[in-house]
Amino acid sequence: MATASEPPRFSLLDIVNQCDSFPYASDPALDGLSFLTFIVDEIPVGRIHSSLVPHLVAFNQQSRPVFHITDLTIAFMPWLADYESRSDAIAQMLDEWRKDTDSFPALKGWRAELYGVYTHIDNPATTKGGAALAIERSACGLFGIHAYGIHLNGYVRTGPKASDVQMWIARRSKTKPTYPGMLDNMVAGGMGFGHSPRYTAVKECMEEATIPAHLAENALPVGTISYTKLSKNCTETQPETQIVYDLELSADVVPTPCDTEVEDFRLWTMDQVKGAIRRGEFKPNCACVCLHFMVRHGVLTPENEPDYLDIVHRLHRRIEYPGPKKWPTFNEIL
Amino acid sequence: MATASEPPRFSLLDIVNQCDSFPYASDPALDGLSFLTFIVDEIPVGRIHSSLVPHLVAFNQQSRPVFHITDLTIAFMPWLADYESRSDAIAQMLDEWRKDTDSFPALKGWRAELYGVYTHIDNPATTKGGAALAIERSACGLFGIHAYGIHLNGYVRTGPKASDVQMWIARRSKTKPTYPGMLDNMVAGGMGFGHSPRYTAVKECMEEATIPAHLAENALPVGTISYTKLSKNCTETQPETQIVYDLELSADVVPTPCDTEVEDFRLWTMDQVKGAIRRGEFKPNCACVCLHFMVRHGVLTPENEPDYLDIVHRLHRRIEYPGPKKWPTFNEIL
Repeated sequence: MATASEPPRFSLLDIVNQCDSFPYASDPALDGLSFLTFIVDEIPVGRIHSSLVPHLVAFNQQSRPVFHITDLTIAFMPWLADYESRSDAIAQMLDEWRKDTDSFPALKGWRAELYGVYTHIDNPATTKGGAALAIERSACGLFGIHAYGIHLNGYVRTGPKASDVQMWIARRSKTKPTYPGMLDNMVAGGMGFGHSPRYTAVKECMEEATIPAHLAENALPVGTISYTKLSKNCTETQPETQIVYDLELSADVVPTPCDTEVEDFRLWTMDQVKGAIRRGEFKPNCACVCLHFMVRHGVLTPENEPDYLDIVHRLHRRIEYPGPKKWPTFNEIL
Repeated sequence: MATASEPPRFSLLDIVNQCDSFPYASDPALDGLSFLTFIVDEIPVGRIHSSLVPHLVAFNQQSRPVFHITDLTIAFMPWLADYESRSDAIAQMLDEWRKDTDSFPALKGWRAELYGVYTHIDNPATTKGGAALAIERSACGLFGIHAYGIHLNGYVRTGPKASDVQMWIARRSKTKPTYPGMLDNMVAGGMGFGHSPRYTAVKECMEEATIPAHLAENALPVGTISYTKLSKNCTETQPETQIVYDLELSADVVPTPCDTEVEDFRLWTMDQVKGAIRRGEFKPNCACVCLHFMVRHGVLTPENEPDYLDIVHRLHRRIEYPGPKKWPTFNEIL
């Protein structure tokens, strides 16, 4: 593991590039990629790699085919016109696919948790909670579905200025399937379909950091970061928006691991956080949440960071797929 | 003038659309527009409407032509390879053009102030302060040059939560050439070439609001808003980034107009600000700065604003033209 005395390996913009790695429209690298557009209700909602097409064609060999496949697009057949039938069809296909995790390594991380695929037209006869369908969380990258989560900065004030702050940083458990042992924000969690951001933030505060609800409810939503990740083998994309919360804690509140996701917590100065980011010790999207915090708290400035303008733009990639206008909350009964 | 009791005319996203009105890459409206790419050092730095081409061709009728013009692009001829020669050539052309303000109405607002056009390659032999050329401020829209400015939120705390705040709002002078009589942020100003954001913020605090430097220096940079405006007649575009500052003021500090740009100031609750935005009383980019403040201070939330995700993305349009890595400060001698 890198030590604090090691020289920085990355610029802050390098780290943003690791998180937001899918090429932009003007980038010639786009021509080397091979994705079809996943369309629902005539609206693009994701990207499916061409290597999946034979598997979709194979699944289509039934009395009523599920997908309409062209050279550029994959859409549902017209008979799959509502939330239930679309979600069922995808679930059936993924049940087949997960038996063959050599072909679909992403499905090794099966979560048994649904993510909503939102649409512009919230018609209660065909949608549920604004979603045109829901899909197993671990399959979102295969379809390039826009995923949502919350990240929460726990921080302690050390002086009168907004930049006089220290942050609680978590180290991820070494047994986590993704980014084991890397640094993370105090609390983070995916937005399971039917949960609101606020509910998710308060629930994860308890589960991951043993912060009780009466404290967690002081967390304030302060914006979002958004980015699109391209997998290393260029076959999966993951557009994501993280709703960011700041939770000011008094010095006597010490977060403690509750479930098995976090190894430990440390309270760090902004310089310590920046150093660890530049040594590549953070999970990249968590580093981006820290950069967003440093921008909002005046720690990074237009004068002290050469990539300031690029970093701020890139932390807010516009993702063109529709999002929810109202977060569904039907799963929030405790 | 609209009164507070009038029903809202616009959604908050409508106001963002007014400010960020240039179509995005996927928008079919783009096909109806007629812009050429302005290229410097082989890099796109702006957009020039096709109606300007005959004027550029006319100016080109000299022993050494200035522009290389193709169907899609306008670039400098190779002999114009440095800051001085490029800036001089544009200045000569604009001196001609401003004699004919019927053809170039934008130049009626001549400011005698230069804006930098930044490049990726900061070669001291060919650039100045990171800029490949500088150009008269009022002409930036004609060339679609990325312009920079600062906007500063003056605010007063009314309680312990970040959302317990009131904002100082300015009304623009009725004699201003642009958006006369509309509402504005406490302080705002364009970034004249050779000035840094911090210097501009402190200087404008004094000039526009009579806030002394020892208070203004507490202003904290807290991010940017960025957008691209398309003029109503679809012949000019203005990509802009505003570096946003928050300045907390104690209740006994009352901003006062100093120069002739501001008519008066009022201290408003967030509900009052939101109401005036929705009645269309703000200059649109100033409304966007207020929305950015409301997002960062937890006043707008994912649960209380249906367009929350779109608004946050759209306040941070990625502008693909190069920006400065280090702000030049050669004009900052007082």
